Amino acid sequence: MGILAIDFGGTRTRTAWYDANLEQQARNETPSLVNQPAESVIQRIIETARRVVPPGAVIEAVGISAPGPLDSRAGVIRHAKTLPGWVDVPLAAIVGEAFGAPAWMENDANLAALSEYRLGAGRGCDPMVYLTISTGIGGGAVIGGRLFTGWSGLAVEPGHMRFTLPDGSVRRLEELASGTAVGQRAQERLARDAAPSSLRDAPEINGQIVGQAAQAGDPLALEVVREAGFWLGLGIVNLLHLLSPQAIVVGGSVSLLGDLLFDPARAAIKAHVLDPAFIPPALIRPAALGDDVCLVGAAAFALQTL
Amino acid sequence: MGILAIDFGGTRTRTAWYDANLEQQARNETPSLVNQPAESVIQRIIETARRVVPPGAVIEAVGISAPGPLDSRAGVIRHAKTLPGWVDVPLAAIVGEAFGAPAWMENDANLAALSEYRLGAGRGCDPMVYLTISTGIGGGAVIGGRLFTGWSGLAVEPGHMRFTLPDGSVRRLEELASGTAVGQRAQERLARDAAPSSLRDAPEINGQIVGQAAQAGDPLALEVVREAGFWLGLGIVNLLHLLSPQAIVVGGSVSLLGDLLFDPARAAIKAHVLDPAFIPPALIRPAALGDDVCLVGAAAFALQTL
Repeated sequence: MGILAIDFGGTRTRTAWYDANLEQQARNETPSLVNQPAESVIQRIIETARRVVPPGAVIEAVGISAPGPLDSRAGVIRHAKTLPGWVDVPLAAIVGEAFGAPAWMENDANLAALSEYRLGAGRGCDPMVYLTISTGIGGGAVIGGRLFTGWSGLAVEPGHMRFTLPDGSVRRLEELASGTAVGQRAQERLARDAAPSSLRDAPEINGQIVGQAAQAGDPLALEVVREAGFWLGLGIVNLLHLLSPQAIVVGGSVSLLGDLLFDPARAAIKAHVLDPAFIPPALIRPAALGDDVCLVGAAAFALQTL
Repeated sequence: MGILAIDFGGTRTRTAWYDANLEQQARNETPSLVNQPAESVIQRIIETARRVVPPGAVIEAVGISAPGPLDSRAGVIRHAKTLPGWVDVPLAAIVGEAFGAPAWMENDANLAALSEYRLGAGRGCDPMVYLTISTGIGGGAVIGGRLFTGWSGLAVEPGHMRFTLPDGSVRRLEELASGTAVGQRAQERLARDAAPSSLRDAPEINGQIVGQAAQAGDPLALEVVREAGFWLGLGIVNLLHLLSPQAIVVGGSVSLLGDLLFDPARAAIKAHVLDPAFIPPALIRPAALGDDVCLVGAAAFALQTL
């Protein structure tokens, strides 16, 4: 008896076999090749997964991680940005039929949240919020020991919190604190004023380059990262007042900036939280799980749903 | 067998006896007289409550609604703004001892949330968020059929969501969309420009006066109410993305402005929500329960905790 887990990503597809304690027993992966027709992509997912199932084993359930937006209840990929041409594909039903087992699907950030709660940096913390900060900002939450997705099944989307800028425009948190935002803010600053910066010699300006310059002490890059940290902090203030988590686990490439990003976030939290009693010890924690975070989350989700 | 409920408010104390189906069997009330010493205020609460308990009845539990901030787990009123001199008063233990029954206390907005979920406008909606908009903005949430207060026990505080203004200052939602905010914005507008308005003849400008002027069609008052509605809408966008409720029940004096406030809120929600699938039918609902909303909430909370 065991759980078959599939992490179908835009680049790679990972599959693994888990026992009921979420211990990985076998693992296999393959490129996703999402530019090929959906039928052959799905066929390759199934073939890759088949190799991790022990001969003669009973598959209790299949858990699938996939890029959103997707309808988890129906098991349908609606229109993932990273999957060209995939519209309303009932991936869970197709995979479930292939393996003769119930199959459930959730989006990757939600499953990473569940994974960090069960085995990672947020173990035992309830509620727990997970943020992944890279080109955008995604996330998920665990409440009462279970993945929380609200009435719509689409929550939580912390990157879509709204703020307003001095020019009156309404922006998403991910337009203010993601890697993309950091790159854009740096470009704007470089164009607008003559402040000295090592970035003026860079062939290209993006979040990664700005992050490296900040780590090397470039003042303009540091200021841009600090500003992103301020917005992240205000976003966390809202998370505290609305979800009051015991831990916020932060993953994604931008989180590797560490205290350059988190120190200004912590300052904003301290300045704007209603009551210090909202702030648990060790509120902000770096994500602990690596490449298999969505894989083990998919297995945990299948177990939770069973 | 029954539940004794106490709603200890800054002005009046209401008490009632409920059966296990939350049907009210007896009711009594008295002025709270909170300027008297705490001991005599508490004694009067207990005397008022004693009169609703049927002779010889077994009190299963006592539920107490009180003004926050309070520590629900410890049953302690920390330092309520409306109760001068009350610091760290263990009201639940005192009342529980007087009646020889377990006693639990929660803040009034949280209990109003539970009440509207169990018997009011949010019946059966899960998650459900309750907002009360008057001088400030308070609120509460029900998730998975239970009052949700997060790790801190202090959530949810929707009035404390942060936004930024064009001048760069960070503001709470309640500084932008409460009755107090409406009164202040109108005063600022009247001082700043010469726009014609019936408010120029008013002896005093507050939220209530501005609301009445808006209902009578005064253009300046309408604009101020519209602005508050816009901020309320942005706040609800955040609630949708983070809690994805099936209903948001809105009470408090300002909510009586109805569509004057909610139409601009709905426009902001429509413009800024990530996906229309976050918006349930009948998202915004007027509160259905009257003066006893916290009383029945206290009874429901005692039942939930039992």
